[in-house]
Amino acid sequence: MAAMMFRRSRNVWSRWNKPSTAVSTRSMASKTPVGFIGLGNMGSPMAKNLVKNGYPVIATDLFPESCKELQDLGAHVVDSPADVAEKADRIITMLPSSPNVIEAYTGPNGILKKVKKGSLLIDSSTIDPAVSKEMAVAAEKMGAVFMDAPVSGGVGAANMGKLTFMVGGLQEEYNAAQELLSCMGANVVYCGQVGTGQAVKLCNNMMLAIGMIGTAETMNLGIRLGLDPKLLAKILNMSSGRCWSSDTYNPVPGVMEGVPSANNYQGGFGTTLMAKDLGLAQNTATNTKTPIPLGSLAHQIYRVMCSRGYANKDFSSVFQFLREEEEQ
Amino acid sequence: MAAMMFRRSRNVWSRWNKPSTAVSTRSMASKTPVGFIGLGNMGSPMAKNLVKNGYPVIATDLFPESCKELQDLGAHVVDSPADVAEKADRIITMLPSSPNVIEAYTGPNGILKKVKKGSLLIDSSTIDPAVSKEMAVAAEKMGAVFMDAPVSGGVGAANMGKLTFMVGGLQEEYNAAQELLSCMGANVVYCGQVGTGQAVKLCNNMMLAIGMIGTAETMNLGIRLGLDPKLLAKILNMSSGRCWSSDTYNPVPGVMEGVPSANNYQGGFGTTLMAKDLGLAQNTATNTKTPIPLGSLAHQIYRVMCSRGYANKDFSSVFQFLREEEEQ
Amino acid sequence: MAAMMFRRSRNVWSRWNKPSTAVSTRSMASKTPVGFIGLGNMGSPMAKNLVKNGYPVIATDLFPESCKELQDLGAHVVDSPADVAEKADRIITMLPSSPNVIEAYTGPNGILKKVKKGSLLIDSSTIDPAVSKEMAVAAEKMGAVFMDAPVSGGVGAANMGKLTFMVGGLQEEYNAAQELLSCMGANVVYCGQVGTGQAVKLCNNMMLAIGMIGTAETMNLGIRLGLDPKLLAKILNMSSGRCWSSDTYNPVPGVMEGVPSANNYQGGFGTTLMAKDLGLAQNTATNTKTPIPLGSLAHQIYRVMCSRGYANKDFSSVFQFLREEEEQ
Amino acid sequence: MAAMMFRRSRNVWSRWNKPSTAVSTRSMASKTPVGFIGLGNMGSPMAKNLVKNGYPVIATDLFPESCKELQDLGAHVVDSPADVAEKADRIITMLPSSPNVIEAYTGPNGILKKVKKGSLLIDSSTIDPAVSKEMAVAAEKMGAVFMDAPVSGGVGAANMGKLTFMVGGLQEEYNAAQELLSCMGANVVYCGQVGTGQAVKLCNNMMLAIGMIGTAETMNLGIRLGLDPKLLAKILNMSSGRCWSSDTYNPVPGVMEGVPSANNYQGGFGTTLMAKDLGLAQNTATNTKTPIPLGSLAHQIYRVMCSRGYANKDFSSVFQFLREEEEQ
Repeated sequence: MAAMMFRRSRNVWSRWNKPSTAVSTRSMASKTPVGFIGLGNMGSPMAKNLVKNGYPVIATDLFPESCKELQDLGAHVVDSPADVAEKADRIITMLPSSPNVIEAYTGPNGILKKVKKGSLLIDSSTIDPAVSKEMAVAAEKMGAVFMDAPVSGGVGAANMGKLTFMVGGLQEEYNAAQELLSCMGANVVYCGQVGTGQAVKLCNNMMLAIGMIGTAETMNLGIRLGLDPKLLAKILNMSSGRCWSSDTYNPVPGVMEGVPSANNYQGGFGTTLMAKDLGLAQNTATNTKTPIPLGSLAHQIYRVMCSRGYANKDFSSVFQFLREEEEQ
Repeated sequence: MAAMMFRRSRNVWSRWNKPSTAVSTRSMASKTPVGFIGLGNMGSPMAKNLVKNGYPVIATDLFPESCKELQDLGAHVVDSPADVAEKADRIITMLPSSPNVIEAYTGPNGILKKVKKGSLLIDSSTIDPAVSKEMAVAAEKMGAVFMDAPVSGGVGAANMGKLTFMVGGLQEEYNAAQELLSCMGANVVYCGQVGTGQAVKLCNNMMLAIGMIGTAETMNLGIRLGLDPKLLAKILNMSSGRCWSSDTYNPVPGVMEGVPSANNYQGGFGTTLMAKDLGLAQNTATNTKTPIPLGSLAHQIYRVMCSRGYANKDFSSVFQFLREEEEQ
Repeated sequence: MAAMMFRRSRNVWSRWNKPSTAVSTRSMASKTPVGFIGLGNMGSPMAKNLVKNGYPVIATDLFPESCKELQDLGAHVVDSPADVAEKADRIITMLPSSPNVIEAYTGPNGILKKVKKGSLLIDSSTIDPAVSKEMAVAAEKMGAVFMDAPVSGGVGAANMGKLTFMVGGLQEEYNAAQELLSCMGANVVYCGQVGTGQAVKLCNNMMLAIGMIGTAETMNLGIRLGLDPKLLAKILNMSSGRCWSSDTYNPVPGVMEGVPSANNYQGGFGTTLMAKDLGLAQNTATNTKTPIPLGSLAHQIYRVMCSRGYANKDFSSVFQFLREEEEQ
Repeated sequence: MAAMMFRRSRNVWSRWNKPSTAVSTRSMASKTPVGFIGLGNMGSPMAKNLVKNGYPVIATDLFPESCKELQDLGAHVVDSPADVAEKADRIITMLPSSPNVIEAYTGPNGILKKVKKGSLLIDSSTIDPAVSKEMAVAAEKMGAVFMDAPVSGGVGAANMGKLTFMVGGLQEEYNAAQELLSCMGANVVYCGQVGTGQAVKLCNNMMLAIGMIGTAETMNLGIRLGLDPKLLAKILNMSSGRCWSSDTYNPVPGVMEGVPSANNYQGGFGTTLMAKDLGLAQNTATNTKTPIPLGSLAHQIYRVMCSRGYANKDFSSVFQFLREEEEQ
């Protein structure tokens, strides 16, 4: 998915990534412990990359067995987020959803119960930007700094340390965050105040869903009208109908190689995950009273697909979903 | 709009445009008369470019005054499509809608009443591909050849001879068509059998509408979430949210220069015209039983915009339409 | 389906149905021959009811075998619509779609080739109202009168002579039409000028589709939120959420008896037929530049359902289509 | 709006409203104090009706001036929800949105800080059912009982004590709740466990929005096709296209009297309020992974209307919004 989200290499981002000369105290203490909370499919390889980069890691997870592997690599495993906060002043969280993040930060055994003043808290979960802002306010009350840094790129990118991080938070803390995040990712992009990392991710993925469904409809209509799909894709890609889903990730089997549509829609970015992100985009739009007619409909289409057998297929399988199959 | 539809220069298309060595009888008779039916905003400059290229032009239009200017340039004006067909064996039609095309070909004074055997009939109107196919069948019965060649690019491109033609019809007749069309356009693309020129145009414009509304929604949501629009556009354009509307024709004022959004949505491709093309795409999809959920909704949105004061603004004004303005 | 479309009995319509005292010449000649063109699932029982009511019937159909049964009942079978028009000055047509109607009226062997002056031509097909208007104009040129009279009610209602006819055309001809139609239907409603019968039918069925999908969504959401479906239906039906689909034809199994949802969505009004009618409504709306956002989306949903295995189920099966089933 | 939501009179509901013989301790102590929190446009007349019915009322509101009028009627005004809870063991809350409810119950000066064991807490705000459930859990921990009882009916119904209450919570507490609610409303409906009152309200209003937009589209399409709107409404209302918006609250000016469409869409149920309820329905659907395609689109349409000048008009003004007006 890193490849999917960002086609260009790290140097494209160099403008943002240039190391600042004004190094903060925290980033000078480079190899002091780093906390990591949430060792799931994504969190586990991310934490391993921190270990590989020489950081002492203090980790915890709700499921003790998730910690075993990391412990074998030398990480120190503790019982709760609060315990992590006691031992590390830079902490990364990687959790499934907003309620988990709220619990890990503000719960009875949460980070903020024992956080040290001046700590840097980076949340890489994909959640509602409004929750990111709440956590930042709560952290600030305890003298700590919270940043949101959701990722693009899946488990493969996490393993290879090639994730993309979209970071929101105080600009003066960005270098300190970047130091850690660049151990786990190929691109780190600064997006603005707290919550903007989440905002950028949700905006991108909403547009991605709209472009993908639109491409699937368009290709399907063209095929029904007698067009050769490869020729149609070629013309669209030179014209104003061009988008990432048509030129880089075409959903029609046979048009491109090396994409999920060439492999029965296996791998890639699952329909369930896309539906989740669209749900967050929808919530955010609703709460800010922003109209998103196509985004809403895209959300509904992926939601229906989830219950019609497409949950675990790549999100480009919407082409298959829309295609005429069995009508009399 | 030629610039809008196709960003790349003529040589991109050289593969298709390479002059064939198997020149047909018709194209050898290069400077024999060419008929032109329909001298509206688009047809008039197109016909002039034929005159400029040395072709004797036999023209007609429902409104005699439309013929005056062309007559002054040396064109021969006649009374009806049938009269054009009597005097020219290569004829181009450029008319507003399907019924006009049906009338001009098969009406009581239509082309087919007096068409010569072996004539080449090229229709550059944007109409339902099914009508193009009907016209081709009717022409074939009279021993003539019909091709559809709708254009992309507006009046400006027509004046400069920089239109793009998407051509459907018999491949062996393509070179003869290309000879004429290249006097009026910078790109001529062969799309397949009769009707595929229309099909490609409708597919492209449907995807364009979806991408534009999607971009407008996404940019608006991002702005509401506190993102800088230029930064958001930059990140989308490096990511999977990229599309022509985000990177070449961004609808948000201030993000790009030289596009309608920088000029109060004047110029460009009007909302009414987009609504017309989406109506054709919708009809085609309905008639072929093809689902186009986002395309349908895009059609409806442009339809509503037409009656809410956006009819003559560029279609990127959907950003303005969706934007929060006056809610309490 | 007659029961489905109209819950009230014939006397509700008495205002419209009151026999006029100004009987036209045609209706005085009551038992002169009546022509019938199109002996399909619907046309066949309709023609039989004319026979049963004592009318000599002159019939034709593209498929000779369709005529056999009617012939056995005493109808006179001829070869073409033109032949029907030669022998009868009151003709009813019941055909699958617009092109069939155009052919039957204006084709080389069509009714209008041999129609007698003063003939009454009644089309009960469901087609585009614009085509009805064209046929009326063509009929008028030959001195005949055309009326559109599409039906509501399925094969069952056709067998029992309990169809509902929505009639458009000259008001002074309405009584003559009503005399024949009331042999085949329980309700005959005068809707206005030519084409308004079709317009009413398409409007009603579009609203029906919107109400049905809306009810399915609403019931499903309520169930997911822990509501008892019977209780929810009861409250909706006493409130502003009430509609025909919630109180008369509820799509949730177990809420009502005697409806398709109680019988695995068998019988009733098939998804394919609903998709066809929505396609006509969409075409009509597109051609008149009328925005129908929910109608368009309803059309798309039924279109997708057709290719996902619901083509032959009752249209209330949209509840099943939307329901959560297999997501992880 | 009570009239709007429920057309039938109180006796329809008698089944639910029948006073139980098993009177709880609380309801025996009938004229002991009742707390009221939230004295806005709706809360103020509701609280007055409790006073009129002889209940000693202990009230509070964020804005002291809101309390003045009630104080003059004899209510006792205190400083915070906690203070209310100290003095009354039956409390009604009527607040604008979920965060206000959370604050009033679980905030630092919230009800639960000083609630007495066995208290009955009734929330009449319209909020997310998930929040109702959270409040119920929190109340239960303190030994209190929480019920949700959102209302239908606007300020007029509140003044007249003619609201409808949809109640969720423990069945054995329903009679106690009903005793109080029936002082303020004409109908009290028991819907099931905690949160189902909200669920019913959101379901009804979502269906209402879909039916209203559908009716507006359908009527507009019919008018464009040449139908008389009164005749179209009459036929729909006898047919399967019937719904509350077509037969009780028709959005087309001139079709009915005494509805907002007859009064330039003034009064009634404002577009902003409908957009708010649809936002709650959308959030609830998103969070329970329930597809609501038409509900989502209805939400988006009302959202766009809010920013295009329709915020304060009745929600039936969608007819005006969709209507063709100024296209060239």
